[in-house]
Amino acid sequence: MRARAASVQAQLEAILLAWGMPADLAAETAQVMTDTDLAGIDSHGVGLVPTYDAMRRAGQLRLDARPRVLRDGVATALVDGGAGLGHPPAAFAMRLAIAKARQAGIGAVGVVNSHHFGAAGWYAALAAEAGCLGLVTSGTRTLAMVPPRGAMPVLGTNPIAFAAPAGEEPPMLLDIATTAAAANKVRAHAMRGKPIPEGWVVDADGAPVTEGEAAVAQVFAKAEGGLSPLGGAAAGHKGYGLGLMAHVLAGTLTGGSFSPIRLRTQAKDEPDNIGHFMLAIDPGAFRPAGDFAADMDAALGVLRATPAADPGQPVLIPGDPERAARAERLAQGIPMPEALVAQIRAVAEAAGAPFLLVAAA
Amino acid sequence: MRARAASVQAQLEAILLAWGMPADLAAETAQVMTDTDLAGIDSHGVGLVPTYDAMRRAGQLRLDARPRVLRDGVATALVDGGAGLGHPPAAFAMRLAIAKARQAGIGAVGVVNSHHFGAAGWYAALAAEAGCLGLVTSGTRTLAMVPPRGAMPVLGTNPIAFAAPAGEEPPMLLDIATTAAAANKVRAHAMRGKPIPEGWVVDADGAPVTEGEAAVAQVFAKAEGGLSPLGGAAAGHKGYGLGLMAHVLAGTLTGGSFSPIRLRTQAKDEPDNIGHFMLAIDPGAFRPAGDFAADMDAALGVLRATPAADPGQPVLIPGDPERAARAERLAQGIPMPEALVAQIRAVAEAAGAPFLLVAAA
Repeated sequence: MRARAASVQAQLEAILLAWGMPADLAAETAQVMTDTDLAGIDSHGVGLVPTYDAMRRAGQLRLDARPRVLRDGVATALVDGGAGLGHPPAAFAMRLAIAKARQAGIGAVGVVNSHHFGAAGWYAALAAEAGCLGLVTSGTRTLAMVPPRGAMPVLGTNPIAFAAPAGEEPPMLLDIATTAAAANKVRAHAMRGKPIPEGWVVDADGAPVTEGEAAVAQVFAKAEGGLSPLGGAAAGHKGYGLGLMAHVLAGTLTGGSFSPIRLRTQAKDEPDNIGHFMLAIDPGAFRPAGDFAADMDAALGVLRATPAADPGQPVLIPGDPERAARAERLAQGIPMPEALVAQIRAVAEAAGAPFLLVAAA
Repeated sequence: MRARAASVQAQLEAILLAWGMPADLAAETAQVMTDTDLAGIDSHGVGLVPTYDAMRRAGQLRLDARPRVLRDGVATALVDGGAGLGHPPAAFAMRLAIAKARQAGIGAVGVVNSHHFGAAGWYAALAAEAGCLGLVTSGTRTLAMVPPRGAMPVLGTNPIAFAAPAGEEPPMLLDIATTAAAANKVRAHAMRGKPIPEGWVVDADGAPVTEGEAAVAQVFAKAEGGLSPLGGAAAGHKGYGLGLMAHVLAGTLTGGSFSPIRLRTQAKDEPDNIGHFMLAIDPGAFRPAGDFAADMDAALGVLRATPAADPGQPVLIPGDPERAARAERLAQGIPMPEALVAQIRAVAEAAGAPFLLVAAA
């Protein structure tokens, strides 16, 4: 089924409302999640509803939370996510960072006591829409990344997102996991019978696992081994360091939890206390904003004009694939496997929310 | 020859003074360059003296420049490097960012009209020594990175450095090029007859070049092809985006040049106008500084205790290899090939500076 985007958004909003989320926050969260599916990031949008439902039932997620400022300075702040879903406090924090950037040239807002917030790029893009540069990192709930020399995962797929506005060009938007590949990408490769590239998955001896089923087992089922950091066997220290940077900014700076420590003692109904980091920079604090936009256009234009190895496959700007997916999915609908549609139907029914998904024309 | 570190520093200071650099800036630049060699980053320290000399003679470098504040805000500033070497304005800018962080919680200082500044990590470490988190990126002079799908290089090896202080543990210090490998690392592999790992170097068709001599030619001699971004063939869009982020913060935000545009029109004696970006964050703006330090210690301790694939090779913290190199080189001296020693002797003589290098005991 390819579902109409508007129906996905309405469905998400109805479920979140039925779960007790305040109306304004439910509307915004549904927007973030739908935009994420429209951008082609299926792993971070509507597909997470069953997971969120399970956490809510376990008492780990307080859906009625409202973000609240704990500390407020001229260019910094700390926001309490109230153990709710991460989308509302993350959006609130980036808006606060943008407001501070407009006053002080730069604003950094941390979020503590939060949860999964979807795709980091959504919040970075919010800064670019407001004419600011945006940088976002986040802590993570699970263990996934095996550091160089290691036999066990100790970091997550801690994301880094960055956005910068241009003039005529659309904004640059980067949104990456600091692992070599996302866990779901390993599964997708295995399902299509493709070999897993060396440098994506390692076993407990640090040796590459390239056979599909074995790689999936290593990532999803076994305690030892897991995903390699960005850079793989030859340069994994770079991805490891970037992942740790993402955690230090989002977790250590804010008072968020560090998964390998939290997981040792966490009770089943104890919130995860995930942290996020939101930075906004007003280019007008450094030079006339029009000059910045003109230079962004010039740089992005040069990158697009790079001679291509295959003239039919031009060089892209970070953000182009997501924009192309959005245009296609707004027209054709958001792909939803039948199993997911059935899960959404069941979750809606259990919550007392209407089933609203409609196939695209 | 392994030269005593103190003699390398004295030699650098004498040459820089003879070139007309103000005494305080010559002392600091000699310190930055010597620390970089001590950290094992031979490509960014004393080995650059002949390159700096050639640029100075070509009129591209104004050695008598003194950094000057162009714009000053509560949490941001822009510094003019005066077309001199990048070390003085970069250190000046990070100190200014730290001072702003102490007042406003965060400080971001850009540098424009600068030049090569050595290793980005030195400036990030400055923030950590002052109890702040530090983030540094830089523009670059040359073209090196071929973007995914591209046939020609359009970005440099634009670095990202990040440092964070801890309590009992030494600071975390990450300092990476956003290419899969540094150009000099390709040369070092080729010289030792080692094959070049796939994902480091590509030709004009985007195909991997793994034979040593061919890879060196591709990187150093040919206009087409070059270094792959961090992530290589499977995830090069990540390194490409990170490299562009480094340039946007350091170059576009400050008014620095973008190499593929500058190189089209630059006169031989025209300064390169490289930009840098310095960010400092005071953890005390977010939570009690002692709590931050304690959580850093806990996280770094967990990472060190990661079960290792080979128990004789424990998992490291970003910064450990540089600290180990420093201890070894302070004791044993800084390795300097005879050819470099001869070059330094010639540069010193031509500048009217004494030759001061002394072998370590």
